[in-house]
Amino acid sequence: MKTITVREVADNYKNELAGVEQEMRRSLAGNVPSILTVAMHLVGSGGKRIRPLLVILSARLAGYNGHREDIILANIIETIHTASLLHDDIVDNAIVRRGRPSANSIWGNQLVILVGDYLYSNALRLAAGLNHLKIIEILSKAISSMTQGELLQLQMAGDVAITEADYLEIIKGKTAVLMSAACAVGSIISNVSEDKQQALSKFGLKVGMTFQLVDDVLDFRANEEKLGKNLGNDLREGKITYPLIHLLSVAEPDELIQIKNTIQSDNFNSSDLAHIVEMLEKYLCLDKAYEKARSIVEEAKKELDIFEDSTEKLSLLTIADYALTREQ
Amino acid sequence: MKTITVREVADNYKNELAGVEQEMRRSLAGNVPSILTVAMHLVGSGGKRIRPLLVILSARLAGYNGHREDIILANIIETIHTASLLHDDIVDNAIVRRGRPSANSIWGNQLVILVGDYLYSNALRLAAGLNHLKIIEILSKAISSMTQGELLQLQMAGDVAITEADYLEIIKGKTAVLMSAACAVGSIISNVSEDKQQALSKFGLKVGMTFQLVDDVLDFRANEEKLGKNLGNDLREGKITYPLIHLLSVAEPDELIQIKNTIQSDNFNSSDLAHIVEMLEKYLCLDKAYEKARSIVEEAKKELDIFEDSTEKLSLLTIADYALTREQ
Repeated sequence: MKTITVREVADNYKNELAGVEQEMRRSLAGNVPSILTVAMHLVGSGGKRIRPLLVILSARLAGYNGHREDIILANIIETIHTASLLHDDIVDNAIVRRGRPSANSIWGNQLVILVGDYLYSNALRLAAGLNHLKIIEILSKAISSMTQGELLQLQMAGDVAITEADYLEIIKGKTAVLMSAACAVGSIISNVSEDKQQALSKFGLKVGMTFQLVDDVLDFRANEEKLGKNLGNDLREGKITYPLIHLLSVAEPDELIQIKNTIQSDNFNSSDLAHIVEMLEKYLCLDKAYEKARSIVEEAKKELDIFEDSTEKLSLLTIADYALTREQ
Repeated sequence: MKTITVREVADNYKNELAGVEQEMRRSLAGNVPSILTVAMHLVGSGGKRIRPLLVILSARLAGYNGHREDIILANIIETIHTASLLHDDIVDNAIVRRGRPSANSIWGNQLVILVGDYLYSNALRLAAGLNHLKIIEILSKAISSMTQGELLQLQMAGDVAITEADYLEIIKGKTAVLMSAACAVGSIISNVSEDKQQALSKFGLKVGMTFQLVDDVLDFRANEEKLGKNLGNDLREGKITYPLIHLLSVAEPDELIQIKNTIQSDNFNSSDLAHIVEMLEKYLCLDKAYEKARSIVEEAKKELDIFEDSTEKLSLLTIADYALTREQ
């Protein structure tokens, strides 16, 4: 198959993506004005629109040939994603998101909690209009799993006993289930066979896990300007991600003392961070994380074997590769 | 018709109410443990269970003769109510709820935001299991309206230009739509005629408006111990409720200056509050609010004329009266 970049994929579907943004504006207009303002602050800040693309591509790969339900569903998924970012930024006390001030730092927690609640419920209200109970089931379950993932992460903050299994559970919840839902709902409106729906749902789950794993690596090595947030943010919040879990399992006892101190300290400085990064390099922990991500993304791509080759399939495979190779 | 107290109504349905609590425990078990703990902190704190009663009574009045969907729906409504209280207490910086520390003051905003999100989404997930798209539609719309009501209230905080119409819009959202939804979903599982569903839905809406109007009056005159929260709380948060709106429309210009100062002050003292209460009494503003509440509750009760007399109808009428006459 020929290759294509993720930017070309987005370009190929730019009309559909514009339709999704229009749909969001339409679905939020006529309400308390702050809802649209807060939502568009995030949506307009240059997110990569991966989730709407997953919906649209999954629908087409599964044979959908309408032109409305896919756009509505892409908006629903993006709305849920936006709500979760709004609430997560409050939970994380984030002051920056995608290189811009976070919504909570501009409008305060009170307003942003309520706007998030509105977006979640409005997404499900829109979904109810599509007359597919299975879609409601998938979406409400996805939101539950997302909040459970965040809760688990919050409760395990700073807990050096965290295992790889705990971590994988957390990233499934916080990132992967929504990408899985994006692919699943896309396929459902196409009335494709159950095994193809399952394949797309699993593809989305694994792409989502890859995304989060790579996100967690980038937190230790991305170019800050590109990433639009500070390095070492996860560590600062006590989030123990894959590279650190590996480090905790291989470092020498005397090294472990300092590592654990940094993890559990409330305000470590840049030399503490530099030391952690040095240890991560010494034990090839970021490579190890990439190895894990690579094996998951290969599984993801294999899920699509059930489909004939097509532009849509190539586009989805491109997104899967991008999840692994992206640098921001 | 003979009379009955709201306590007797609750006693008559104590098995059902116990079933609802059991259903909540069941539906939240097996998750991150903090979800059940935080939810039960509120549910176990002696709320009056009005909303589950509205579901169960509406279902029976509309002819429902099963014994499972009504309990599930009562749990769903109570779960949504619980989620909204959790988030509202964060938005209001409340430290006390029903005479006990608020969840956010015990567990912090971060955890409580996420537990609220989980409860909302889980409620809709449970609703999806009932195979009635209309129920999902009513519930998701109710949550949207609740958050819109809260947003409107937040944005109008301290705004002395607020009108009676704004206020009625706010209380519909924050309290009445969920009571309306409770009655509506109860009637839907009974497959009763559309006009009876509408009657119950309107009954719930008007009872909810009465509840909130009386709540707002009690904020100025309840026995603090009974109410389980401080007097003048609304005022302290800049919430301009019915009695104050009336006061603003009738007070003399020189009185208005001091009233507006207190409303817009960040930390007024007990003599400021006493002065407001004095003005409210001078202009009979609480009586005026009760008059409004009484006219709404009479409309509510009239909605039930479409049903034959029965214990369930008497019980619903009792709850309507209680909304008006309660002292806490």
